[in-house]
Amino acid sequence: MATSSTSALAAPRTGIWLIGARGSVATTVVAGWAAVAAGLQPAVGMVTHTPPFADCGLPDLPSLVFGGHDVAACPLPKRAEQLAAQGVLPHDLPHAVRAELAAADAEIRTGGPLVDDLRDDHELISAFAEDIASFRMRNNHARCVVVNVASTEPAPRAGDDRLPASSLYAAAALRAQAAYVNFTPSTGLHHPALHGPYEVPVAGRDGKTGQTLLRSVLGPMFAQRALTVRSWSGANLLGGGDGAALADPDAAAAKNAGKERVLADTLGTVPEGVVHIDDVPSMGDWKTAWDHIAFEGFLGTRMVLQTIWQGCDSALAAPLILDLARIVTRAHEAGLTGPLPELGFYFKDPDPGAPSSLSEQYTALLGLADRLRVAHT
Amino acid sequence: MATSSTSALAAPRTGIWLIGARGSVATTVVAGWAAVAAGLQPAVGMVTHTPPFADCGLPDLPSLVFGGHDVAACPLPKRAEQLAAQGVLPHDLPHAVRAELAAADAEIRTGGPLVDDLRDDHELISAFAEDIASFRMRNNHARCVVVNVASTEPAPRAGDDRLPASSLYAAAALRAQAAYVNFTPSTGLHHPALHGPYEVPVAGRDGKTGQTLLRSVLGPMFAQRALTVRSWSGANLLGGGDGAALADPDAAAAKNAGKERVLADTLGTVPEGVVHIDDVPSMGDWKTAWDHIAFEGFLGTRMVLQTIWQGCDSALAAPLILDLARIVTRAHEAGLTGPLPELGFYFKDPDPGAPSSLSEQYTALLGLADRLRVAHT
Amino acid sequence: MATSSTSALAAPRTGIWLIGARGSVATTVVAGWAAVAAGLQPAVGMVTHTPPFADCGLPDLPSLVFGGHDVAACPLPKRAEQLAAQGVLPHDLPHAVRAELAAADAEIRTGGPLVDDLRDDHELISAFAEDIASFRMRNNHARCVVVNVASTEPAPRAGDDRLPASSLYAAAALRAQAAYVNFTPSTGLHHPALHGPYEVPVAGRDGKTGQTLLRSVLGPMFAQRALTVRSWSGANLLGGGDGAALADPDAAAAKNAGKERVLADTLGTVPEGVVHIDDVPSMGDWKTAWDHIAFEGFLGTRMVLQTIWQGCDSALAAPLILDLARIVTRAHEAGLTGPLPELGFYFKDPDPGAPSSLSEQYTALLGLADRLRVAHT
Amino acid sequence: MATSSTSALAAPRTGIWLIGARGSVATTVVAGWAAVAAGLQPAVGMVTHTPPFADCGLPDLPSLVFGGHDVAACPLPKRAEQLAAQGVLPHDLPHAVRAELAAADAEIRTGGPLVDDLRDDHELISAFAEDIASFRMRNNHARCVVVNVASTEPAPRAGDDRLPASSLYAAAALRAQAAYVNFTPSTGLHHPALHGPYEVPVAGRDGKTGQTLLRSVLGPMFAQRALTVRSWSGANLLGGGDGAALADPDAAAAKNAGKERVLADTLGTVPEGVVHIDDVPSMGDWKTAWDHIAFEGFLGTRMVLQTIWQGCDSALAAPLILDLARIVTRAHEAGLTGPLPELGFYFKDPDPGAPSSLSEQYTALLGLADRLRVAHT
Repeated sequence: MATSSTSALAAPRTGIWLIGARGSVATTVVAGWAAVAAGLQPAVGMVTHTPPFADCGLPDLPSLVFGGHDVAACPLPKRAEQLAAQGVLPHDLPHAVRAELAAADAEIRTGGPLVDDLRDDHELISAFAEDIASFRMRNNHARCVVVNVASTEPAPRAGDDRLPASSLYAAAALRAQAAYVNFTPSTGLHHPALHGPYEVPVAGRDGKTGQTLLRSVLGPMFAQRALTVRSWSGANLLGGGDGAALADPDAAAAKNAGKERVLADTLGTVPEGVVHIDDVPSMGDWKTAWDHIAFEGFLGTRMVLQTIWQGCDSALAAPLILDLARIVTRAHEAGLTGPLPELGFYFKDPDPGAPSSLSEQYTALLGLADRLRVAHT
Repeated sequence: MATSSTSALAAPRTGIWLIGARGSVATTVVAGWAAVAAGLQPAVGMVTHTPPFADCGLPDLPSLVFGGHDVAACPLPKRAEQLAAQGVLPHDLPHAVRAELAAADAEIRTGGPLVDDLRDDHELISAFAEDIASFRMRNNHARCVVVNVASTEPAPRAGDDRLPASSLYAAAALRAQAAYVNFTPSTGLHHPALHGPYEVPVAGRDGKTGQTLLRSVLGPMFAQRALTVRSWSGANLLGGGDGAALADPDAAAAKNAGKERVLADTLGTVPEGVVHIDDVPSMGDWKTAWDHIAFEGFLGTRMVLQTIWQGCDSALAAPLILDLARIVTRAHEAGLTGPLPELGFYFKDPDPGAPSSLSEQYTALLGLADRLRVAHT
Repeated sequence: MATSSTSALAAPRTGIWLIGARGSVATTVVAGWAAVAAGLQPAVGMVTHTPPFADCGLPDLPSLVFGGHDVAACPLPKRAEQLAAQGVLPHDLPHAVRAELAAADAEIRTGGPLVDDLRDDHELISAFAEDIASFRMRNNHARCVVVNVASTEPAPRAGDDRLPASSLYAAAALRAQAAYVNFTPSTGLHHPALHGPYEVPVAGRDGKTGQTLLRSVLGPMFAQRALTVRSWSGANLLGGGDGAALADPDAAAAKNAGKERVLADTLGTVPEGVVHIDDVPSMGDWKTAWDHIAFEGFLGTRMVLQTIWQGCDSALAAPLILDLARIVTRAHEAGLTGPLPELGFYFKDPDPGAPSSLSEQYTALLGLADRLRVAHT
Repeated sequence: MATSSTSALAAPRTGIWLIGARGSVATTVVAGWAAVAAGLQPAVGMVTHTPPFADCGLPDLPSLVFGGHDVAACPLPKRAEQLAAQGVLPHDLPHAVRAELAAADAEIRTGGPLVDDLRDDHELISAFAEDIASFRMRNNHARCVVVNVASTEPAPRAGDDRLPASSLYAAAALRAQAAYVNFTPSTGLHHPALHGPYEVPVAGRDGKTGQTLLRSVLGPMFAQRALTVRSWSGANLLGGGDGAALADPDAAAAKNAGKERVLADTLGTVPEGVVHIDDVPSMGDWKTAWDHIAFEGFLGTRMVLQTIWQGCDSALAAPLILDLARIVTRAHEAGLTGPLPELGFYFKDPDPGAPSSLSEQYTALLGLADRLRVAHT
């Protein structure tokens, strides 16, 4: 049949299956991808668009196709308009990329478990895996990567032997032979039932977008200068879905563990001080993070560094997600499997253990680019 | 004679000759050295006291001996008391290290040119070089390093063919075969009359103690994450001698050039924004630096990072000066001459051109430690 | 004639003649007025819309009509679109109030002096006064108030006996028997040739929108608590027309004088420290002001307060301008003439000398409201 | 007997009985009082030393005598040395006022209830009242004021019918006919068993020293300018005893209630946002408070004010306590009883309800000064 023979000849496509596909991060990913692919916006924030990643064989933007799971019903074009009203997306963008948003929305399936869901874990995994497989088939694409961008889920409780939702989706990805990226601090593959080895590349967890990004350069600075950090305290204000989710101390605990790990790794000790995450609904997707670092210099002199980071979470996350999807897809093609340690650059809690200093992580990332380039040429 | 034979057998000593020897930085260097050498204080802030510098053959602290030039008359023990009253030195330290301060003060000679000084440049250089040579002889030390820690001098005016004071001292150092470190933005060796090659190791210029230190880690962060910095503005408030000196726009120009170079090098472009330096006498030796960085992320989203650094300039500078004196002395012993590119870690305006990213500079510094270790063993 | 008899019966209208009528402040005034009058937006920021001003006989919003002078040609509807793109106006507002913007734009006349303008001061004043008178006639309004919202002009130079542009416009206002408000630090009526007494109410100068607003509440706080302020330093970053104008040290001097007066008046002394104003074009109409206040408490303990104000200058200024126009018009009607001391609440440099504490100024403003209410009823 | 007749003729003395008499606040009160009384330090921070309080008949500093209750044993001279080492007191002060510290320490009695204390509430109150009465007798003073400066106690639990310690002391004060000031958020007189009317003046509660002081001037600023505050979030870092006490959410709740009341009263609504209090032991008595205020201006424009307050709690509190003790004593003498509404200037949670705006509170305080002056002359 004409169509199928055309399909067979078409360039291979890469599927990106987003868990939380109608959230603000996912909406920004799809709208931003469409804008950059169409040349409406520069690729600011996408590290894979910088010279070191040329000729690495990464899938190009037009070859990507999006779908995903969500339990929310508001369609992507509508979500994009809401984000534009908040200043997260350029005002005209939802209109300009309406077709692409609608196309992605048509590929979104209802996730779960829903309230009163009678399916057990196995049934859910099967259903999710089937959604993914069907998406791949429908879109004639060679590879697929599942990326978790859903709201942070509460830390699992001891004694609860059901898999958390993030792990159900992770299991479905493995079942469907899709690569897997966990951009949230949720459990995902970090569950005893899902230990590897894996036949696909996986990456995680908890995207490093703001305060922890800063900590991963400031921690090494103090260490390299042999200055003693006495306390490192922080406050985060954010609205949006994540603000509400992280106001739950259990959910925040997972996130804060990642933040503290960066300090422990780079400073060699854990300084005094805690991090708070506050839900401030009126801030929407905008986040303000204040850090107060009390340190001691020569002869015990007390000094202080404070930082204030005012950013838009979705805008910070989206280009990293496109980066990860492209790199992991290419790694999959190049035959790499399991956790990719060179992706620590992107995560608060890199999997497997990786250096916490951003500059070391960047060097490692460039090394991966080199490996992929060599494999490509 | 008994004394001379004893001297001949004594361990070699290292002379540190400070230009601006009665300033707050120099006073902190001497008092702090004495405190650390005596075990009264830990060596916080001294990178040469961290494990990578073990076994490199650096001169140990007890072997150092201090002297220098100054035009001020207030003796070091008195200056130390003033600094303790300001909280720059621990309150009891001036008393505890009074003997060492007095010993260093006895080795300070009047510098110049003084007001109405009738000596020409050559006479001044000869006089200074003789002071240095005599200090070396008196103290039986094998090597000497001259470190400029004087207040920043105005940028030289076009058409003025007299050497600025910092260059007179630098020439004297070369004449006396002492290594030379310029910790200030003053001209020093950067004068056509003093171009190399040099027979001794030299290092400079403008110690990187605060705002620029931060910029050397934040600039690379933005670049590595492919974020576009639109503007980078800064304000510095400081008192002390440097506050007054840098309130002079000519003097500030030299300092600011170093700060901007770091951004240009690490970001690849020069963002909008200027840096101000204000003299606030009541702040004494304490400095507050505010930086405002407006950057653009994915889809042109505008975000802001602000940093506030509250530090004590002398306490930040002193351990770096001890580091530099130790490393340069060891490099001298190992036969290295001319500018040491691996010391960019310490300077705003590294000589010769060096990478501006702190992490690359740190890697280079560790490489130098390795070279010195190999030469030593 | 039908038209004139209709006019004679119509409610009296109030003309607001803006100097700088196509600038961002003026555009925000007109667009915002239209939005609030139409019920599209609440009257946030308009003090005259709060209960103490009810029943004072202020002209209501629908009765206002706008015109003005400018040397720029870009029409108001276009300027409004530019401001919406910067986030200064809500995105849909320029479209929604297009008719009102166009109507105001049709009442804008070319100002001056233009480059190579051959008219002398008297000719210019006459021309401007005629423009204002003609606007009044055309619009059947009883009263008119001229408000200077043009970019700050350089401080006049000694020996230059030509009137600065702001004074030409002020003289024209007086000639046309319009009340006059100087919302900028420019000279306006502060010129020997324009000393009073005046037959109309006048108010000025230099609207208090951000950093100085803060200072007018923080200064009294330190004074009331008997805390000694040692230094008060500030940095302002802003783009837009005022950023460029105030990067000129002469223009900034006028603005800074107002800021310092607030401290001198409220603290009783002038602390150390200066204020910088930097032009950062990419910030557009957004302003960031950092203040660093070093103060001394009991037993000489050193403490610090820092404030960071991130505001939109036009959005802060516009409601105050509507307030002033309404109040001054009503005062005119009530027979008040000359400087109104109760308007110090609105100005950095109140005319005539008024208390600098915001709370005292607010009390005085409420007193004026009471007087106007009594006169009204 | 000679001694008693001398006493009878001596100037009347005023006793200040501190609950928590060996804490850092109490130590600073006594050391600072001695320093100011001896002319070693100016009376910075004492509002009662400013001109409006001249001739009001306040007890002069030399006539004050100190004592108090505490369960800690470390004597005041030793505590003062510890505070000097932290920079809270000038380094030489403990030595200079050693005699006064020792004299006050000799008047400190063991408080309670102690661990395993077998005394019931009535016995404790009697014991405390007797301590106070005996102090008064011993020191020949006409009046006495009891001031609670102990660490904040947890909020009382529902159903617990024992009086909290702060209420036991308050009851003892009443029993001993001493005036009573509660400088903490602890219960004190706010217990059903202790409702008035009272025969002595009382004042409270929770001294307003930092973040809330700021809020009491910033809240009115937003309200007077008709700006809508969307969220007001805060973080507090502090060490010392209060840091540890307030890390307990129950204790923090009382403190935060006062902070929020100020906003509710001055803004007319309660904005989004919470306040955190973190214990950072290495900060000692130094406190850093960050506030983030998101507000909306004309046309819904979003703007932000942030404040950072770095202060020393004891140095901020001590002069206010001396103020309160002097004013309350004079009020007692003038026959005033019960809560003094004019003292809202000093408290987060003024008793009885008082305006929350600092400027209104200051005006009220000056009114009280006038009443006392009139009564005096």
